[in-house]
Amino acid sequence: MVATDSSGVAVRCAGRIGVVASVAMNLAFLAMYINRHYFGKRRSNDGTSSSKEITTTVEPSKGKPPVTQDSVVNLDQGDPALYKEFWDGTGDRATIVIPVWQTMSYFSDLSGFCWFVEPGFEREVRRLHRLVGNAISDGYHLLVGTGSTQLFQAALYALSPTENGTPMSVVSLAPYYSSYPSVTNFLNSGLYRWDGDANTFTGDKCIELVCSPNNPDGGIRKAVIKSKSTKTIHDFAYYWPQYTPIIEAAGHDIMLFTVSKCTGHAGTRLGWALVKDTEVAQKMIKFMELNTIGVSKDSQLRAAKILKVVCDDYELSPIGKVNHLFHFAQRKMAERWSRLRAVVATSGIFSLPDELSSYCMFAKENVTANPPFAWLRCHKDGVDDFEGFLREHKIITRGGTKFGVDERVVRVSMLDTDEAFNVFIGRVASLK
Amino acid sequence: MVATDSSGVAVRCAGRIGVVASVAMNLAFLAMYINRHYFGKRRSNDGTSSSKEITTTVEPSKGKPPVTQDSVVNLDQGDPALYKEFWDGTGDRATIVIPVWQTMSYFSDLSGFCWFVEPGFEREVRRLHRLVGNAISDGYHLLVGTGSTQLFQAALYALSPTENGTPMSVVSLAPYYSSYPSVTNFLNSGLYRWDGDANTFTGDKCIELVCSPNNPDGGIRKAVIKSKSTKTIHDFAYYWPQYTPIIEAAGHDIMLFTVSKCTGHAGTRLGWALVKDTEVAQKMIKFMELNTIGVSKDSQLRAAKILKVVCDDYELSPIGKVNHLFHFAQRKMAERWSRLRAVVATSGIFSLPDELSSYCMFAKENVTANPPFAWLRCHKDGVDDFEGFLREHKIITRGGTKFGVDERVVRVSMLDTDEAFNVFIGRVASLK
Repeated sequence: MVATDSSGVAVRCAGRIGVVASVAMNLAFLAMYINRHYFGKRRSNDGTSSSKEITTTVEPSKGKPPVTQDSVVNLDQGDPALYKEFWDGTGDRATIVIPVWQTMSYFSDLSGFCWFVEPGFEREVRRLHRLVGNAISDGYHLLVGTGSTQLFQAALYALSPTENGTPMSVVSLAPYYSSYPSVTNFLNSGLYRWDGDANTFTGDKCIELVCSPNNPDGGIRKAVIKSKSTKTIHDFAYYWPQYTPIIEAAGHDIMLFTVSKCTGHAGTRLGWALVKDTEVAQKMIKFMELNTIGVSKDSQLRAAKILKVVCDDYELSPIGKVNHLFHFAQRKMAERWSRLRAVVATSGIFSLPDELSSYCMFAKENVTANPPFAWLRCHKDGVDDFEGFLREHKIITRGGTKFGVDERVVRVSMLDTDEAFNVFIGRVASLK
Repeated sequence: MVATDSSGVAVRCAGRIGVVASVAMNLAFLAMYINRHYFGKRRSNDGTSSSKEITTTVEPSKGKPPVTQDSVVNLDQGDPALYKEFWDGTGDRATIVIPVWQTMSYFSDLSGFCWFVEPGFEREVRRLHRLVGNAISDGYHLLVGTGSTQLFQAALYALSPTENGTPMSVVSLAPYYSSYPSVTNFLNSGLYRWDGDANTFTGDKCIELVCSPNNPDGGIRKAVIKSKSTKTIHDFAYYWPQYTPIIEAAGHDIMLFTVSKCTGHAGTRLGWALVKDTEVAQKMIKFMELNTIGVSKDSQLRAAKILKVVCDDYELSPIGKVNHLFHFAQRKMAERWSRLRAVVATSGIFSLPDELSSYCMFAKENVTANPPFAWLRCHKDGVDDFEGFLREHKIITRGGTKFGVDERVVRVSMLDTDEAFNVFIGRVASLK
């Protein structure tokens, strides 16, 4: 099924990607898929059957149920299923083996700045930033979190004054990520309080959340509040070459990243923060100690291994870069966006934000942005609740009001499986 | 070094454990240790060198620096280093292998009660409770958390009313776990507020935290507040046979457990909750979604594998149970407590809580409790700040005021390495 769909895409985009290579690769994936899933054996790099390994390999988790032509397609969350195809093709190189006696302690490195950061994870993250060039990491403290969501809360905690009785205002330009208000407010903290759209903020002191490329609409964002006492948190979950041209190595006070949207390993629940100020970083560590006494070492070890393979691929085999992670994902995203823009253009009732393109310092060429979410607007008369309209057509999306704007726009994940994306495209094409 | 110390302990406790067997086992551990750490090779179960595995094995994290005769001994935290010796002896059976393409999704099981609980983890946890008999799990919802600390906060969130403007009081009988006040209060939540010792609480409605065996003093606890509108959270981190006789299968509304203190894998940051009420469990899930969007799948897969080996050992090889996890740890703890009680008895200036013993439904015999922490009191004139006094002797402990009581008592971890424990015992013996 993976092969069928990608081949279909390849034919449509024949000018941009090599059809022969693509079909061959897809056939190889298909063979591997069948071998793995139906015969329950994996082959090691030397081609010999690795039966020892299978006995210790974990049971696959169930994940989401598969999509069929008639089923509901859930594109509400940004589950990064798109990446599985890539990792299916990498063999055992990024497989992790953790002996039972290893990393049992709470402590990763008592001599480091942050006792719960695994040194190997930190090393690979800094290496990745040097490779991609999306952020300055030299001179920054690196912290790890259970997803960047936890680090977001750690940053709110660190940036809010504890003495004053008034909660710090937290704002972001609409449309803003739908989780910002709920995550900021769910504990009814006296330290900070969601205060809505940054454009309507009239106070003199706040924390501004800057998500760029922006979730949900893919816009390239800068802080909009100019007051000197405003503090910023830059959410760079999507500032990776597959989604957007890398236009600069960012160097803001607090920058958040996540493995989920970089390599597709959402289930590892691993994010990291680059933090300039030592005192702020120490307060964030304090939050992490109180909230969860550190972060899963197993996830850190796994992520370190995965990021190492990503970096190794580019640094040791630059000649084959079109097959490496960011190039693979960029191609997949471009294919999907191309198909979506085509059906939207012919629909007559939908629209998307304008296509952005720019010189990418990583790709070393002009590239078009392929945001992780489609911010789809409906112009059809009588459709006031677009999310509800799509739900009637068995497409689950997230409506504009959750992002601080109107109901005639929805956010649609572009990162789901080929199957789900195909069904989505087919249904959108049928709506006039 | 592991071998030297355990042999020393074995000689002193010759009547209780087989010296010959112990020495032989320790020599085997030593050989395995040297082989593993100095020659960098591990042998698979069939005795052949497993070079493939070593190439994919993760880099060991640094953990805490080793203790020497002259160094500071940090027994402040309850880092469960004691368990490494056991797991060093289990070969590859509980080693985990996670292929890179596996468990990438946010979702573990959308058909289950809780979408982020790995089915394999849930199965092994329920199996473990049936084996040990420490808690009823049938009819309970099982939730997973990043350590039980996170689930504790999820429970506070779930049990606190959201409408009323007054924060819910949170109390626990002193001496109470030192983290309860800080974890309850650090976000200055309007939903709940730490209200101190349950014995001095005069309100009509609160959440009572019941830790049993109690951290720090090992006492067997029941809820003390009788009001019908009081809700309870039972912290059963230490309700395992190595620490205390299993006197009943507990069946309270919310029961918290953690892998850290059960198998010694603190670095996996994995806890679980058994929750009776569906609505409360759903609110706890909501907390987990907002706080960290679920829990590391890698840690869940690893913990499932480890718990499976623990259960397999007892169920498939009951005849060798003295060498299985709980029996091993119970023996280690009993050895340590025996040595500590001996030096305390001869000191003339220290005291410990009375030894408790009872019939253990798991061991099927009368056993003595071996709490994870020593609650050590100092009676020496002029020593008002006992924590400070011990710090002068390079022993780091946690003073009584953090647990809501006086300064002449400290909590000392009994779970650290043999090296640290030996140095601690030697220093206590030298204090008169």
